[in-house]
Amino acid sequence: MAVGLNAPEALQPVPGIRVAAVAAGIRYPGRDDLVLIDAGPDATVAALYTNNAFRAAPVVVAAEHQAAGGARWLLINAGNANAGTGAPGLAAARTCCEALAAVTGDPAEAVLPFSTGVIGEPLPVERIIGALPLLHAGLAPNAWMQAGRAIMTTDTVLKGVSRRVALSQGEVTLTGIAKGSGMIHPDMATMLAFIGTDLAIEAQALDGLLREANRDSFNAITVDGDTSTNDAVVVMASGASGAGLVTAEDRVAFSAALDAVCLELAQAIVRDGEGATKFVTVEVVGARSREEAAQVAETVALSPLVKTALFASDPNWGRILAAVGRAGVPDLVIERVAIRVNDVEIVRDGGRAPEYAEADGQRAFDAEEIHIRIDLGRGDARTRKYTCDFSHEYVRINAEYRS
Amino acid sequence: MAVGLNAPEALQPVPGIRVAAVAAGIRYPGRDDLVLIDAGPDATVAALYTNNAFRAAPVVVAAEHQAAGGARWLLINAGNANAGTGAPGLAAARTCCEALAAVTGDPAEAVLPFSTGVIGEPLPVERIIGALPLLHAGLAPNAWMQAGRAIMTTDTVLKGVSRRVALSQGEVTLTGIAKGSGMIHPDMATMLAFIGTDLAIEAQALDGLLREANRDSFNAITVDGDTSTNDAVVVMASGASGAGLVTAEDRVAFSAALDAVCLELAQAIVRDGEGATKFVTVEVVGARSREEAAQVAETVALSPLVKTALFASDPNWGRILAAVGRAGVPDLVIERVAIRVNDVEIVRDGGRAPEYAEADGQRAFDAEEIHIRIDLGRGDARTRKYTCDFSHEYVRINAEYRS
Repeated sequence: MAVGLNAPEALQPVPGIRVAAVAAGIRYPGRDDLVLIDAGPDATVAALYTNNAFRAAPVVVAAEHQAAGGARWLLINAGNANAGTGAPGLAAARTCCEALAAVTGDPAEAVLPFSTGVIGEPLPVERIIGALPLLHAGLAPNAWMQAGRAIMTTDTVLKGVSRRVALSQGEVTLTGIAKGSGMIHPDMATMLAFIGTDLAIEAQALDGLLREANRDSFNAITVDGDTSTNDAVVVMASGASGAGLVTAEDRVAFSAALDAVCLELAQAIVRDGEGATKFVTVEVVGARSREEAAQVAETVALSPLVKTALFASDPNWGRILAAVGRAGVPDLVIERVAIRVNDVEIVRDGGRAPEYAEADGQRAFDAEEIHIRIDLGRGDARTRKYTCDFSHEYVRINAEYRS
Repeated sequence: MAVGLNAPEALQPVPGIRVAAVAAGIRYPGRDDLVLIDAGPDATVAALYTNNAFRAAPVVVAAEHQAAGGARWLLINAGNANAGTGAPGLAAARTCCEALAAVTGDPAEAVLPFSTGVIGEPLPVERIIGALPLLHAGLAPNAWMQAGRAIMTTDTVLKGVSRRVALSQGEVTLTGIAKGSGMIHPDMATMLAFIGTDLAIEAQALDGLLREANRDSFNAITVDGDTSTNDAVVVMASGASGAGLVTAEDRVAFSAALDAVCLELAQAIVRDGEGATKFVTVEVVGARSREEAAQVAETVALSPLVKTALFASDPNWGRILAAVGRAGVPDLVIERVAIRVNDVEIVRDGGRAPEYAEADGQRAFDAEEIHIRIDLGRGDARTRKYTCDFSHEYVRINAEYRS
């Protein structure tokens, strides 16, 4: 049984994991901007990092330290991405880890650093180091909300979720926080997500679960196709519950809960864009493979023409059709393609559905939650992508940022 | 020797090719919207059509007719794309070709039809057929400008170019017209280009020259990644000059002229966007292959974050760097990447160039012609892509179109 506790107010502490946030003065005056998470001495940690070839310094160091084994501490700062900073940036990230090691007594390799904020500016190492003793002293089980707020950059809402799952050996908790604000200030729109659980699980198994959950959640959101240099998703398992995944039912139940936590956090990122006025699900079914389905869904979800039509509530279905057509699916038989938007059938057999009336299309496109369902009519594979519309605000915000 | 005659006022007639335009009342009141081109009885014709799987009806019919051999007539209408129209649309396109065949006395397969305009509305076949006798009677060598205006939809300027090339057997002319307006009203932004020459050349050789010219011109412009269902580029050679490509010098000279005509028409399409305020060249050098260079150039040219920064004249080089990083180049060594914008070196060895000053970047980004040069430092392959910036107007126009 999974109980959803979706309001961030209800973020549950996770046995064995402690959290703290302080104001280190990195960039924003008068607010917390530095977070420490202690996953505990017996923790296992799984993480996925950005595929961008220009990985920011903290991502490089985090991946290195994680590969060394023994990760326990996450040190996260907002306000500065430590990206595009070259060798000095790498040194800065390492220095912060070493300084934290001196406070905790654990090796520097036990620390995974994460940064989000402006690109190309030196990380204010001294301020971070100066704040570490207070940060460490403040560790407490119940600071997830505080941490969720501290990692915000241009986010307008705190993103957090908790779930509890009953397993055969006892109940476990999952609590996650995320930051990222989709369409706005994309230099700072790094997506970070940190999920804690008291499940007892080996690192390799946890990694497998995270990869699976990530595929349909964080990897399924697409706003403008630009991937940040700093993206990361981390799951920590403290083991404090003593409950493991013993039965097949345990695996199904926990996996479903982790999937749900990731999906909810990912969708919250898409929804939180000043420029976004609609939440859009692009579902592709009837594909020959999942990759093919994803290719079509992404092409539609990233098409500026589709996205501006959605913003305008203009039932301009020809743009969806044209995007499907250029998605690069080999030997696509147009006559088998069907498209629905919410409850309205728009395209059937590759052409306008006979019963389609513009008024129905208008009603579908007027909605704030748009579900575009594309049936390729050539197989059983399917996937979903989540995105938002493309508004005046997107251009305004992205053009005006920094100026 | 190639003489550029770039003002459309100076469009030169092409011996052996006749052109006419009339007002058929397809959509726009009081303007020409139907064009006929007669490439002559001995013409060879080469054409490239959209890769979009949803090819509009006229594209399907034109490709069929061209494959049958003997193409001589081009029938082009503006105001209606005859796209997304299913079987009735195909029948409409065929009916127009048959009606023209009755007027010319040639078989219907000698006619290649082209359409541009709104999607999903039935082609007004009767109006087109009714206008054919007058259109045919009006054929004249010197109507290229009139034809160039008649194929415009949301284009704001006539796009045309002429060149003359001296070959060993005599001088030949190339005259081309194009329509397409990049960022605006993209449902109608079909790119069409029709180029005539009096060169004597076999169809297969002409096809080869067109494919080569297309690669660095029409295939090198990218505005928002959306490919129209109606795109087509056609070259007709009447043979009337009696001059062929006899020597190696002939081939080089004519090929260069055709490349230049295609490039000029393609660039004119990018420049003609109400929303576009800057003309942007993205050049990638030092790649391992041309495909790799193109992949990086397109990723940068299509990045909404890069394009909004260019619109804002914001020297936000981190966005270019991040786009290069996510372009999917395998084993990209960041430390070898360099980026220049116009005359300013911004990134060297994968990081901010030591001498780079924000004021220099500001000066470069302030320009209306922006040349972004990305050196991947891993090979000798290179390519260029042409695009424009992403302005408020883009969203306004694309959101308001049809509403």
